[in-house]
Amino acid sequence: MHIQLETVLPGDIEKRSMELLTAELPHPLDAENADVIKRVIHTTADFDYADTLTFSAGACDDTVALLRQGGVTIVTDTQMACAGVSKAACRQLGAEVRCFMGDDDVAAAARANGTTRAVAAVEKALALQGPVIFAVGNAPTALIRICEAVADGSLRPALVIGVPVGFVNVVQSKELLLTLPVPHIVNRGRKGGSNVAAAICNALLYRAAGRTL
Amino acid sequence: MHIQLETVLPGDIEKRSMELLTAELPHPLDAENADVIKRVIHTTADFDYADTLTFSAGACDDTVALLRQGGVTIVTDTQMACAGVSKAACRQLGAEVRCFMGDDDVAAAARANGTTRAVAAVEKALALQGPVIFAVGNAPTALIRICEAVADGSLRPALVIGVPVGFVNVVQSKELLLTLPVPHIVNRGRKGGSNVAAAICNALLYRAAGRTL
Repeated sequence: MHIQLETVLPGDIEKRSMELLTAELPHPLDAENADVIKRVIHTTADFDYADTLTFSAGACDDTVALLRQGGVTIVTDTQMACAGVSKAACRQLGAEVRCFMGDDDVAAAARANGTTRAVAAVEKALALQGPVIFAVGNAPTALIRICEAVADGSLRPALVIGVPVGFVNVVQSKELLLTLPVPHIVNRGRKGGSNVAAAICNALLYRAAGRTL
Repeated sequence: MHIQLETVLPGDIEKRSMELLTAELPHPLDAENADVIKRVIHTTADFDYADTLTFSAGACDDTVALLRQGGVTIVTDTQMACAGVSKAACRQLGAEVRCFMGDDDVAAAARANGTTRAVAAVEKALALQGPVIFAVGNAPTALIRICEAVADGSLRPALVIGVPVGFVNVVQSKELLLTLPVPHIVNRGRKGGSNVAAAICNALLYRAAGRTL
């Protein structure tokens, strides 16, 4: 069997990938959101995201402007998403990415209150000072708790990225977020994931940092 | 808008998810590989994996038996996949998960040799003692380097998980792995990812650790 490799220099692989996927997009993308959508497709090789990613008006532009001011905290609901967010871009912008899922006090609170750890981690994050971006790629329970806190006025996040994946209350948690007056990026349906959450964060961070691709 | 949530106790969410996705599978799965395929679908909500995940004969059973003996090192090509592999299961089995992508010597070697960091990280992993599982969810360049080392006899991994995602040499790197006489789990086509690599590792770890789901 003969396998023909494409010759691409290491530094050009991402650019070439973006060219290839852009050429295959099912339809033109809204300019404000195009880099986010393309980065998610780059991360998943799944063109469904061109049709299911949903943005509140100004979500990307406003978040990019905020990131440029510095001092933003990104809170993820998995260590995996936390690991996937660009530390270099965060450093450049004076942003920080945190995940509370592995914290002992979060595990204890979840046991004490009969919630998921993801919910207990959101409770912990409610105490953060300064602008917060929530990036939820895994736990619909976390997204529902965020929505409750937004609805009762106890939380005003800069952005909620609602891209949990799966089968139990995932679709519902996203539809709930879509009803709320909070900046959001949602992937409607069952798909999403920690990789998707990280990709969306990175697209916004890269734009804010002036890295073009 | 009224949103109807399904009432599921925190400890039952994963079980309920598995029930729901099992009911929607497009066809029955081979028993040896079913838990791996279902865990990937659980991680992605993408039923395409029921048709594209490809296993060499005995890959899962042999890897589970090996994990039970202890001392296995899992090498991932991203920090994200590394973060996603169950540390609790690794501890129980005396296994270790490592990623060399962030190492200073790897960055230096990549610069010196004009390769991707992913290739330099594979080079570093070649020196590991004991049984090694390579889990490649991102970089086809890493998978191609592993294939070269297998082909020239300098590497005999216990298992190669070949699930890079994307557009440049991704399909080719997987087809190359499929030609080699090495235990492998491959997702044919463009799809894959760090989340998929971690999910496959976890399915094997959970089975070895006696955790059923």
